Amino acid sequence: MPVNYTPPAPETLLPVAGVALGIARAGIRKADRKDLLLIRLDPGAAVAGVFTQNRFCAAPVIACREHLAAGAIRALVVNTGIANAGTGEPGLAAARATCAAVARLLACEPAQVLPFSTGVIMEPLPVARIEAGLPACAADLREDNWAAAAEAIMTTDTVPKAASRQIKLGGATVTITGIAKGAGMIRPNMATMLGFVATDAAVAQPLLERLTREAADASFNCITVDGDTSTNDSFIVIASGKAGNAPVADAASPDYAALQQAVTAVAAELAQAIVRDGEGATKFITIEVRGGRDAAECKAVGYAIAHSPLVKTAFFASDPNLGRILAAIGNAGVEGLDVGRVRLWLDDVLVAEQGGRAASYREEDGARVMRQAEIAARIDLARGAAQATVWTCDFSYDYVKINADYRS
Amino acid sequence: MPVNYTPPAPETLLPVAGVALGIARAGIRKADRKDLLLIRLDPGAAVAGVFTQNRFCAAPVIACREHLAAGAIRALVVNTGIANAGTGEPGLAAARATCAAVARLLACEPAQVLPFSTGVIMEPLPVARIEAGLPACAADLREDNWAAAAEAIMTTDTVPKAASRQIKLGGATVTITGIAKGAGMIRPNMATMLGFVATDAAVAQPLLERLTREAADASFNCITVDGDTSTNDSFIVIASGKAGNAPVADAASPDYAALQQAVTAVAAELAQAIVRDGEGATKFITIEVRGGRDAAECKAVGYAIAHSPLVKTAFFASDPNLGRILAAIGNAGVEGLDVGRVRLWLDDVLVAEQGGRAASYREEDGARVMRQAEIAARIDLARGAAQATVWTCDFSYDYVKINADYRS
Repeated sequence: MPVNYTPPAPETLLPVAGVALGIARAGIRKADRKDLLLIRLDPGAAVAGVFTQNRFCAAPVIACREHLAAGAIRALVVNTGIANAGTGEPGLAAARATCAAVARLLACEPAQVLPFSTGVIMEPLPVARIEAGLPACAADLREDNWAAAAEAIMTTDTVPKAASRQIKLGGATVTITGIAKGAGMIRPNMATMLGFVATDAAVAQPLLERLTREAADASFNCITVDGDTSTNDSFIVIASGKAGNAPVADAASPDYAALQQAVTAVAAELAQAIVRDGEGATKFITIEVRGGRDAAECKAVGYAIAHSPLVKTAFFASDPNLGRILAAIGNAGVEGLDVGRVRLWLDDVLVAEQGGRAASYREEDGARVMRQAEIAARIDLARGAAQATVWTCDFSYDYVKINADYRS
Repeated sequence: MPVNYTPPAPETLLPVAGVALGIARAGIRKADRKDLLLIRLDPGAAVAGVFTQNRFCAAPVIACREHLAAGAIRALVVNTGIANAGTGEPGLAAARATCAAVARLLACEPAQVLPFSTGVIMEPLPVARIEAGLPACAADLREDNWAAAAEAIMTTDTVPKAASRQIKLGGATVTITGIAKGAGMIRPNMATMLGFVATDAAVAQPLLERLTREAADASFNCITVDGDTSTNDSFIVIASGKAGNAPVADAASPDYAALQQAVTAVAAELAQAIVRDGEGATKFITIEVRGGRDAAECKAVGYAIAHSPLVKTAFFASDPNLGRILAAIGNAGVEGLDVGRVRLWLDDVLVAEQGGRAASYREEDGARVMRQAEIAARIDLARGAAQATVWTCDFSYDYVKINADYRS
């Protein structure tokens, strides 16, 4: 069960004009589950994406990068079950064959199709099953189909993840709706596992690319479940341009700021949902680091804490064994860190200062916070004005169970 | 139960002339367990050490560095139960008070005593209990007491770790005996949790310092259990000079090479014993990376694999889900890595080449190797001549159990 996360009711996921979604049960790896998603875009949509930094990036990521560079994207196709990663040249050919099959069905060019895969690494993609499933996707294409789409991209997720909101942009009502999947192998670097956010706002292509990077950095690039960056991480933002707003073309405009904020809010809601549904998670942990010389060292401290198995198991056990957090801070590789000035709080309880336990700290206060399902660890490095936030979950028996059993 | 490790029989641990050990049950954190060790050195011993790189280094580590710089060490004192880390100025005062108590007992200066602590972080060191226990240690001082000493430094270790051997050095018989402790928070960086190796060889002080660094780099700095570098890691080499050999004073001499090799062999045996007894370990994994541009990138790849919870749980499950190893290699941050040239073997089974699964690979071969208690993962990066080895263990339910329950 996710930590304090309930998927939104299907009717609250607002359709985005110009973006239709259709799903199918293609039997890609397991029979009779939604495992194939087709997203069709009306002509004129702007699309931008950020992708995994893993050197063993998956074949579909290679194809996505190529096709995005060419522009004029008309469709996205997503399969679960098989990641098509660690598959070499045959994997790239399989990704291209998938795009060609979509292009035939929708009467566009293969280079106008973005492919995505998620699932087991190093197994061949069953292209024939995808081809066979695509007509059912096409028959199912509807703009009010986001809830089914969120289900169709799940792997070890226990719940679908989706979010939606509307804002006013110069008199026009603009809708933003997104879905994401991911529960393990989560430590995105420039992107998430799979996240798709669509808006009907009109946005100039270069600005959409900037907005996508900024939204990723403040959402999917702030989360970690187990520190493993996947081979397939992709985050895509679609702007269909149907809302009737004056096209957003100036990064200094209020419209850009408003849209950037709204897309980031949807992306952050999805990113946090991934952590809340993290494999085996029983707690949602926010790590706020401030007082750093730059955001990079704040994030390094946040991730050092979020990746420490000892810290994560202490959260699982509700054990205020908080020296483990100090040890993780000390391991973050912050050059010249004066540990005597570092302060650590759990929620509002001051735990450590002057290199040791705070005089005011009482074990029962730490224990009280550690029992909560949502905990904020706050660290002040006291050497600058930068800050960063990392969201993570605890580390339980079930993480081991899920990952020891995943293929069986 | 450790993976293929049985502690050596006490009578096989050879005494080192000039090095006497005494233990006590001081009740430092739990009643009636061996938790205090005193090591007395005859005058003239050379002593060198390497220590944790964690910025929150423990108070005894600070004191050790100071006292080693002054030289003429006459005693080491080790307590378990409390790490005296994250304890600020009062912690440093407690470490100094411990040294003073030993100095009074042995009629030397406090600066001639090296203090070591291991256990829970951020709790105050009960100096009075240590002082009260020291006379029992002094009464127990014997050169043939290594087996009891190995027991007295254990925390979550399930077995004591010790090793011993003899070599000939220019006609003289030289003995090397060592002990170590550690099972979790293990990813040493320039040192181990606690490791003490003594030899009766005569070695010049500057050369002993070099030998200590080299031995650590090829032993304790090659292991990881959970990627957490402790606040207290310390590795100490003592050379009592009683063996009657011509003092080793030239790094280019065969005597230096022979002694360095023998000390490294003892240190590596102790380091591997720590991994074999890693918290919850059911398998011992050797990761050999070759074909790198330098040893650092080979070690980065080895540690990326050894730290991936997904890889470690797959080893635990005996599941040849080997794409997880490729993903970890891709995450190691090796600039310009050509994944199409990387090859991966499990023991002698070629698993991956040309960016994907090897044509010759059969799942049953991978499954056969994964079922073994000892597995070698071999990676060829095919871009240089450097190599490195990392030793690690798998990640099981019991790791979570041990670390969720440690303080209770």
